[in-house]
Amino acid sequence: VSAEIVLALDAMGGDHAPDMVLKGATIARERHSGLRFLLFGDSGRLGALLVQYPGLRDRAEVRHAEVAIAADERPSQALRRGRQSSMRLAIEAVRDGAASGVVSAGNTGALMAMSKVVLKMLPGIDRPAIAGFFPTMRGESVMLDLGANVECDADNLVQFAVMGAAFARTVLGIPRPTVGLLNVGEEELKGNDVVKEAARMLRRDDLPLEFFGFIEGNDIPMGTTDVVVTDGFTGNVALKTAEGTAKLFGAFVSAAFRRSMFSRLGMVLASGALQALKQRLDPRLHNGGVLLGLNGISVKSHGASDGAAFATAIGLAADLAMDDVGARITEDYHRFGGIAEPRQAVVS
Amino acid sequence: VSAEIVLALDAMGGDHAPDMVLKGATIARERHSGLRFLLFGDSGRLGALLVQYPGLRDRAEVRHAEVAIAADERPSQALRRGRQSSMRLAIEAVRDGAASGVVSAGNTGALMAMSKVVLKMLPGIDRPAIAGFFPTMRGESVMLDLGANVECDADNLVQFAVMGAAFARTVLGIPRPTVGLLNVGEEELKGNDVVKEAARMLRRDDLPLEFFGFIEGNDIPMGTTDVVVTDGFTGNVALKTAEGTAKLFGAFVSAAFRRSMFSRLGMVLASGALQALKQRLDPRLHNGGVLLGLNGISVKSHGASDGAAFATAIGLAADLAMDDVGARITEDYHRFGGIAEPRQAVVS
Repeated sequence: VSAEIVLALDAMGGDHAPDMVLKGATIARERHSGLRFLLFGDSGRLGALLVQYPGLRDRAEVRHAEVAIAADERPSQALRRGRQSSMRLAIEAVRDGAASGVVSAGNTGALMAMSKVVLKMLPGIDRPAIAGFFPTMRGESVMLDLGANVECDADNLVQFAVMGAAFARTVLGIPRPTVGLLNVGEEELKGNDVVKEAARMLRRDDLPLEFFGFIEGNDIPMGTTDVVVTDGFTGNVALKTAEGTAKLFGAFVSAAFRRSMFSRLGMVLASGALQALKQRLDPRLHNGGVLLGLNGISVKSHGASDGAAFATAIGLAADLAMDDVGARITEDYHRFGGIAEPRQAVVS
Repeated sequence: VSAEIVLALDAMGGDHAPDMVLKGATIARERHSGLRFLLFGDSGRLGALLVQYPGLRDRAEVRHAEVAIAADERPSQALRRGRQSSMRLAIEAVRDGAASGVVSAGNTGALMAMSKVVLKMLPGIDRPAIAGFFPTMRGESVMLDLGANVECDADNLVQFAVMGAAFARTVLGIPRPTVGLLNVGEEELKGNDVVKEAARMLRRDDLPLEFFGFIEGNDIPMGTTDVVVTDGFTGNVALKTAEGTAKLFGAFVSAAFRRSMFSRLGMVLASGALQALKQRLDPRLHNGGVLLGLNGISVKSHGASDGAAFATAIGLAADLAMDDVGARITEDYHRFGGIAEPRQAVVS
């Protein structure tokens, strides 16, 4: 990567901020030579810290922000009291064209609310959704919504499908991604009214995606479809259940190897393989939820991010900035406009 | 186990029925010496098959049923056309006192609908829920609903909590089980209206359970609470996501070990440990969903069950029959009656 890309970083968001933000920026900068950063936060603290990151000094600019949004603040409260916050000012840098994208490990609800208010939605999209990657048997899938919208109607799910497909085309490079709608069974008659209605709408053959139909929870890690669409409640629970199960499995493997002298020796011999496995499953390499549907790039890093995890989220924002995923989504909406308003389509 | 227990088996339900039903009964019989079976299904076929299972012949009695419910049949259709089905007649054997419980690997929706119609609900419970076990860091947890009710209100979730706690007391032997309500975050303000209202109701201090509060997806495999309560849509997705993730992880481990000569040798040395791990995670050992809230014991075995899996489900039904979990749930409801009708409680 040689093209110059400027990203706005919320330096005060996340459990280990601001230190891990500078660490993450340093790691990301080594991978993408064209990256430059605007660091939003307490200028005194950031200036002092920056001395410890010589590789960053001429690639990062500190922008002072008075306020830091707390992790447990209500979004409405953050909107009211956070006009001078590091998060808000970083998002505004994207709106004003000073940066191509924003990355924050702070309060998810606040980031969503502020991104929506400041950046506005793309035409035809009602609400932003959080999209992320899942490692699968076949490689990687995109799943959304991972927690932005705890209640969704059929229109929302259809919009998520279109956004997710555009995202998969851009980031995974799949020309016509397959999209599955998460349900409790694959049969037509299963599920609640919302998923049934969404499936009916997604069966229109003029959509810029391949609708696979209903899928079940086990299809997510199987990689049955390139894109998994669900409401934010189910998606969040599924994501965290998978993370927890991987952790449980890892603990069981470790315990199994400690069982006998033979197995301990086996572990030593296989340590290279186990290390590779650990790396493959490292959640820090899958970090970064993209707020899709906005007129600008906004990436959420895990609240517990360390430098390595934050660097992954920065890398994701940089990829999106180069590929202009927003333009793709808008283009798709123009191409088959009206799906979000099924009643209109029936009347005309 | 020496006490005599009779179970009714739907011998025609499941992908591998009736063969695996007889296999499962044979395995279960070796573990519980007091077990006897009523086998419902095609008497010609079952009689011929039974010859191959000499250990079962004097412990099992064939009861002819004309009809077998198909896996994709609608519950309403199964109710109408299935009066002479193996499933229905097996459930009726429980109602009539000929058997202490029924086990089926057939159509879940049909089993639920028929069990509800034939056995009726316990006083105070509106709908049956499917409960099952999860392996966790701390041992095992109970989770419900695993797919019976795709849409739930707060009353339903509270009833699930009480039933799940009674179930955990009976089967896991925990005097005062902790109950967690699955949500997208632990904070009070997160989630949809249904879980918020259910949490408010569960905070009453006269309930026969320890309400932990909200938990997230990763808390399920962590074993944060003894009981996990959620609606059937989310519960089904979470269960299947966990199953699929365990399978994905297993495939990754196998692939890692095949990477080099060293790691292959390591695998040979650790084969005992890996075998033990495989057994620990064997889904067949966690098979069996209990339809809670009914006036009788009805256990759902996985549709793809083999003999080993079906034997686990039979064992579960036998345990429940001995412990009389229904009486426990009813007793709990009497002890704190009225939780299911919060409006009444407010008026009086």
